[in-house]
Amino acid sequence: MSTTKTYRIAVIPGDGIGKEVTPVAQAALEKAADGVASFTYENFDLGAERYLRDGAILPDEDLERIKGTDAILLGAVGDPRIKAGILERGLLLKLRFSLDQYINLRPSKLYRGVTSPLANPGDIDFVVVREGTEGLYCGAGGAVRRGTPNEVATEVSINTAFGVERVVRYAFQLAMKRKKHVTLVHKKNVLVNAGDMWQRIVDKVGEEFPQVTHDYLHIDATTIFLVSNPSRFDVILTDNLFGDILTDEAGAVVGGVGYSASGNINASNEYPSMFEPIHGSAPDIAGKGIANPTAAVLSSAMLLRHLGFDEAAAKIDRAVEADIAELGSTKRTTEEVGRDILARI
Amino acid sequence: MSTTKTYRIAVIPGDGIGKEVTPVAQAALEKAADGVASFTYENFDLGAERYLRDGAILPDEDLERIKGTDAILLGAVGDPRIKAGILERGLLLKLRFSLDQYINLRPSKLYRGVTSPLANPGDIDFVVVREGTEGLYCGAGGAVRRGTPNEVATEVSINTAFGVERVVRYAFQLAMKRKKHVTLVHKKNVLVNAGDMWQRIVDKVGEEFPQVTHDYLHIDATTIFLVSNPSRFDVILTDNLFGDILTDEAGAVVGGVGYSASGNINASNEYPSMFEPIHGSAPDIAGKGIANPTAAVLSSAMLLRHLGFDEAAAKIDRAVEADIAELGSTKRTTEEVGRDILARI
Ligand SMILES: CC(C)[C@H](C(=O)O)[C@@H](O)C(=O)O
Ligand SMILES: CC(C)[C@H](C(=O)O)[C@@H](O)C(=O)O
Repeated sequence: MSTTKTYRIAVIPGDGIGKEVTPVAQAALEKAADGVASFTYENFDLGAERYLRDGAILPDEDLERIKGTDAILLGAVGDPRIKAGILERGLLLKLRFSLDQYINLRPSKLYRGVTSPLANPGDIDFVVVREGTEGLYCGAGGAVRRGTPNEVATEVSINTAFGVERVVRYAFQLAMKRKKHVTLVHKKNVLVNAGDMWQRIVDKVGEEFPQVTHDYLHIDATTIFLVSNPSRFDVILTDNLFGDILTDEAGAVVGGVGYSASGNINASNEYPSMFEPIHGSAPDIAGKGIANPTAAVLSSAMLLRHLGFDEAAAKIDRAVEADIAELGSTKRTTEEVGRDILARI
Repeated sequence: MSTTKTYRIAVIPGDGIGKEVTPVAQAALEKAADGVASFTYENFDLGAERYLRDGAILPDEDLERIKGTDAILLGAVGDPRIKAGILERGLLLKLRFSLDQYINLRPSKLYRGVTSPLANPGDIDFVVVREGTEGLYCGAGGAVRRGTPNEVATEVSINTAFGVERVVRYAFQLAMKRKKHVTLVHKKNVLVNAGDMWQRIVDKVGEEFPQVTHDYLHIDATTIFLVSNPSRFDVILTDNLFGDILTDEAGAVVGGVGYSASGNINASNEYPSMFEPIHGSAPDIAGKGIANPTAAVLSSAMLLRHLGFDEAAAKIDRAVEADIAELGSTKRTTEEVGRDILARI
């Protein structure tokens, strides 16, 4: 009789290559957790296709069912026919905000076997801890006299000590398990209200972690260091918008967002956390069976780690690392990469 | 009897290496404009040193005198002893806003002889047209319950059709003199109010320039392209904060902000425009006479071009280009680089 616990996973394959890479991520999850955990899956038909078909974005009853699961695996969502903002705010951000996923966790690592666009990349291995439920992503803003020469449009960044402190503490805790260095990134010389609050909270929480050093960089300077000296970073701690920007640049620097996964984490476990590759639905290559499932597979590892299965997660990480080192530069189909990685788990 | 017109230039050398590179920029200005324009200089003792000495940041009478000049040459301002935001908002941004310098112009070019950190940089030659008087730089924001667990801090981005349309039109006009392509950069899938307005105005103004093509990229995707394919850009058009971020990354990609100049331009000429290198006051190397004056010299060229002296400006650009191609990799003092560039003008 099996004594492994069963977890309910909400699966949102989404659109385009999202639907191609998600099954590979599930297969990796199964194999890595074999003997330690089992999973049941609930598929949710959400994303651009669904929206184009019947206009639904995230029905309340779906959101309620998702709230009852233990974790979410998301593929990718989007279609160029849909106006910017509709699915982002109605689905992706709605999930992040409704499920209070306040930690957006994005590791950046240059794998052996991957060519960085940098001439001398050095060792790159850092994590961006991005706040996920505040800042300019709140949707607080508006417009008057729309379409006239007197139009005024605003966007409001809302930042709370409550929201900042919890992500700051998470970053320091994470740094304790890593190289013990936190870099706060903001633009406190211009955004003086929010920037000053972030800095004060980092200074205060930092005192609880005497072994962790911390420094500060402006967002503009950080984009320089990501190109000129990415090895200097261990844990980058930043707000929602700056995190969005930095993680894409970081993805490029480590040789492509095809190797980058992310977790949208509710660290207090009131709601399920969500794991997804950073890449989009890639309509240009969708349906050809050539999408690289590596980032999706890595998001399964993040999911396992979140549920407490560090060893199973490490199995996936090691398999991916070995696969890339040996075969990273060979042209393979989605199925082939999946098969190769699975064989190593 | 000379028939050249005399221009009044406000000079703000500022701090650190600002004071070392500005005289070189003035010497280049003089030599390049010899016979076509003459200059008188009014020095302003503004910046960190002044602030630390007597607490003054930008006295009203200085601002009034500056308003009466034809253009401003700025070195660099800043000192780590001063709290972030004080000089930025009290001096630099106060000048940009008071003088309605709504175009922040930043060319990015990979010079022959400069090593880019990218393995395969390709030909890089684009200009960022950054809005300079709106967005998150307005200083609209505040905080309540500061220092308590219930603190809330906001930052407000204010965007007007008036402010956006003038910078959009400038970008299209500039593109007409270049490769005729404008890329709007924003985050319209999240910042839907401001992003939608920017896009509508670009679409509308674009119709007046049928020869100019335009596309759109999210800010996060743009940071990827700057690393993976910077040659794709001609004119990047964006808001105040995104422009700040992108130009620093661009500076890194073309081999360092030491080669990047910028103009803060009031294109309707109601107030003087301001030209400055992108680099800071660099306290670590200040006083050693080793700061590279190239970016400051290039800002003189931008000043000349703004005043209508295209040929004199081109002389400086060519001299810098030749200097870098031949001697860019040799270690030289500030004085030596100045002498070498001047000899070529
Ligand atoms: C799609 C978009 C809303 C999203 C974001 O801006 O957070 C994406 O860019 C990301 O980084 O996950
Ligand atoms: C110093 C600072 C206020 C300024 C800015 O953010 O605009 C600087 O970074 C720049 O790019 O000129």
